[in-house]
Amino acid sequence: MACPYQVCEWRSPEDLTKLLDLELGEAGQAPAQTLQHCRDAIHYSVKTNHPHFFNQLYVGLDHYAMVGSFVTDATQPSLYTYEMAPVHCLIEKVVLEKMMEMIGWVEGGDGIFNPGGSMSNMYAMNLARFQRFPEVKEQGLSACPRLVLFTSEECHYSVAKAAAFLGIGTKNVYVVPADQRFADFHTEYAVPFMVSATAGTTVLGSFDPIEELADVCEEHNLWLHVDACWGGAALLSNKHKHLLKGVQRAHSVAWNPHKMLMAGQQCSAFLVRDKTGLLQRCHSACASYLFQKDKFYDISCDTGDKSIQCGRKADAFRFWLMWKALGTRELERRVDHALEMARLGIKKRDGFRLLMEPEYTNVCFWYIPPSMRKIPDSPEFWQKVEAVAPKIKERMMKTGSMMVGYQSHGINANFFRMIIISPWVSTKDMDFVLDEIHRLGADL
Amino acid sequence: MACPYQVCEWRSPEDLTKLLDLELGEAGQAPAQTLQHCRDAIHYSVKTNHPHFFNQLYVGLDHYAMVGSFVTDATQPSLYTYEMAPVHCLIEKVVLEKMMEMIGWVEGGDGIFNPGGSMSNMYAMNLARFQRFPEVKEQGLSACPRLVLFTSEECHYSVAKAAAFLGIGTKNVYVVPADQRFADFHTEYAVPFMVSATAGTTVLGSFDPIEELADVCEEHNLWLHVDACWGGAALLSNKHKHLLKGVQRAHSVAWNPHKMLMAGQQCSAFLVRDKTGLLQRCHSACASYLFQKDKFYDISCDTGDKSIQCGRKADAFRFWLMWKALGTRELERRVDHALEMARLGIKKRDGFRLLMEPEYTNVCFWYIPPSMRKIPDSPEFWQKVEAVAPKIKERMMKTGSMMVGYQSHGINANFFRMIIISPWVSTKDMDFVLDEIHRLGADL
Repeated sequence: MACPYQVCEWRSPEDLTKLLDLELGEAGQAPAQTLQHCRDAIHYSVKTNHPHFFNQLYVGLDHYAMVGSFVTDATQPSLYTYEMAPVHCLIEKVVLEKMMEMIGWVEGGDGIFNPGGSMSNMYAMNLARFQRFPEVKEQGLSACPRLVLFTSEECHYSVAKAAAFLGIGTKNVYVVPADQRFADFHTEYAVPFMVSATAGTTVLGSFDPIEELADVCEEHNLWLHVDACWGGAALLSNKHKHLLKGVQRAHSVAWNPHKMLMAGQQCSAFLVRDKTGLLQRCHSACASYLFQKDKFYDISCDTGDKSIQCGRKADAFRFWLMWKALGTRELERRVDHALEMARLGIKKRDGFRLLMEPEYTNVCFWYIPPSMRKIPDSPEFWQKVEAVAPKIKERMMKTGSMMVGYQSHGINANFFRMIIISPWVSTKDMDFVLDEIHRLGADL
Repeated sequence: MACPYQVCEWRSPEDLTKLLDLELGEAGQAPAQTLQHCRDAIHYSVKTNHPHFFNQLYVGLDHYAMVGSFVTDATQPSLYTYEMAPVHCLIEKVVLEKMMEMIGWVEGGDGIFNPGGSMSNMYAMNLARFQRFPEVKEQGLSACPRLVLFTSEECHYSVAKAAAFLGIGTKNVYVVPADQRFADFHTEYAVPFMVSATAGTTVLGSFDPIEELADVCEEHNLWLHVDACWGGAALLSNKHKHLLKGVQRAHSVAWNPHKMLMAGQQCSAFLVRDKTGLLQRCHSACASYLFQKDKFYDISCDTGDKSIQCGRKADAFRFWLMWKALGTRELERRVDHALEMARLGIKKRDGFRLLMEPEYTNVCFWYIPPSMRKIPDSPEFWQKVEAVAPKIKERMMKTGSMMVGYQSHGINANFFRMIIISPWVSTKDMDFVLDEIHRLGADL
């Protein structure tokens, strides 16, 4: 899709500081200046809704979702209580129920929207711990044995952050290859309590085998959490939902509609299969100024005490609004389109080498400039390759023609990670990326 | 201020469920229907920007802040890296620095915006713990002695939530009256590590004596955190900043511009005096796909790894924009106006009794209906008073004429807690509230 503006207008931190008039002063200013600040903020911001933005696991939001966010911005609901956010307490419930239906929890469950997948993964860890050791809420970990959890090599870094934050410790996160077993970790000194699986990993977009992990968890009485922040959207596709086969056996699921479904940040659901009020019991503090018992309506609608936040934005609304407007079938079509684009022929191009066949929409590949194409695979070759992506990335940013991320990963030298999300990405855009990378890097 | 619409359009959860067309279906719908959903969401939402909304520690946002939120909604920056959010990384820095200047940290410090004051209080607790026991990040609390912290009776419930979430345990939060000493808690079994003081408590709007607490913390080597989420705005007022006297001695401060300053939810700053990178060391996970070391720009601008989140909204922008537009002096005028309104004469009215003289803008009072005014203070009297506020609240919600919270508190029977924030609240509005409460409750 031809686009009349660039993806980004790169300026160094020093230059941009000079360009923007950042200082906050005693006096106010004329509206025209404020408008100029808005123009500048837009001009120098990354255009995340540009069809050549492939840099992150999200792109700028769907247009209906944007309208939805304007509505909630202007009205400023906060989801402590039904009294304070009647519309949004009901809408959050409907959206959570629909997502649980997609997961396959036929008897429902519970859940809460919160500011990001990292938070959802923290909720999962706290809930798993509380379910096993309810005394932890009051007495803390000093009343518990050392707790350990398992995750796969490709998990999101938020699992480590959560373990640190919750006082469990990053060293108590055992990283296991998916085909290895969890049996022998239970000693008198350490108690395994959960497995955090990933459905759609950040880098490669791969899916842990949920059925197998569910078997292990059942056998060893472990909480199974599935971080489907990125991959959850596949549940909307009849063609691709097999990627999450077995997800209904999870105890909890994290799923971010702001990623593949373009519902706008942050739109992150934490879903839990429990129906006994575990989420509430685990997090409640019963603040007297919000959760009065002598209210005149059904206080089960006051969901705020399930949250670790106090004020909480109405993040479900814009997702609900776009879902209403588009319908499930259009969401499915978009997911299918993104996966289809990701499978298009990078491998058929000279100088482009796929790291792996995409399972999802992460297209990970190396660009090999002409000067290197005759060098045989060797440490020297990969050392040269390592320098290619950062250099092209720099040129790409300075040109502003597109944004694609890069990184090294394990033994793999720096490669590009191109993420396909937008329903407006066409085969022409895919060709553009390859042409442009070649244009920017052919001399290297 | 006369307003052409009601504060709320109360419907019971059952009725509102029927009124809104909540279900999510396979097919999409016509734009007109989507527009109607937006109209309904607005119509049945609480009008938090109405001059008779006094229900929470925030009101609907300033108009410039609203424009700011539309800009960030439409562009969808996420503050992992400078590359992804150049404008917003710089603006967040400037706003944090300005807030630190107000606190009185002449040498600066560090900080981060995050989704809510509860999060900020969690950051403080995690940082205090990490600073004292750096091994906790990797090894968890099983490598530490039992940790305890102190807070005042009136602290926000998020302190307990944080202690539970971080694995410290709610029973290890010692609630001490402000005039009591912290000396004797250090045993071989429990190590005190922080004091969480409150500047502007949720219910009464009172301020802990920070200077005294700072003395105690210095003596006992404790981290001093000041939860100034609500009261921090007083720092903008030359007349009222004495309320936070000594705040510059705190190790960390939480301050929410979305509350008194109307910057729109969530706009919450966590500020820390440390300049050695403690925030980064405590929370970093060094994800290779975001925080590459071989970037072509100064990666000290990539602030995302200080956060426990991954994606993070550009919450500082709308505060910065309104600050630019209004200037510090207008912010000061607004704070002064709110405090002036709060001091107006409720006590001069028959049937209204103040719980205490407001320190800030929480006006806590009982309404005594005429039928009770001759009953002497006694358990029977207060038992009758207990039933008054909930009944008036119900009538108020169903009328939609205003919103004022109520609650019981310690030995105090249900009273109204009226929060003054909006610069558009006039003495007429204050009179309206008292008239309306009398109108709604005179027959009780």
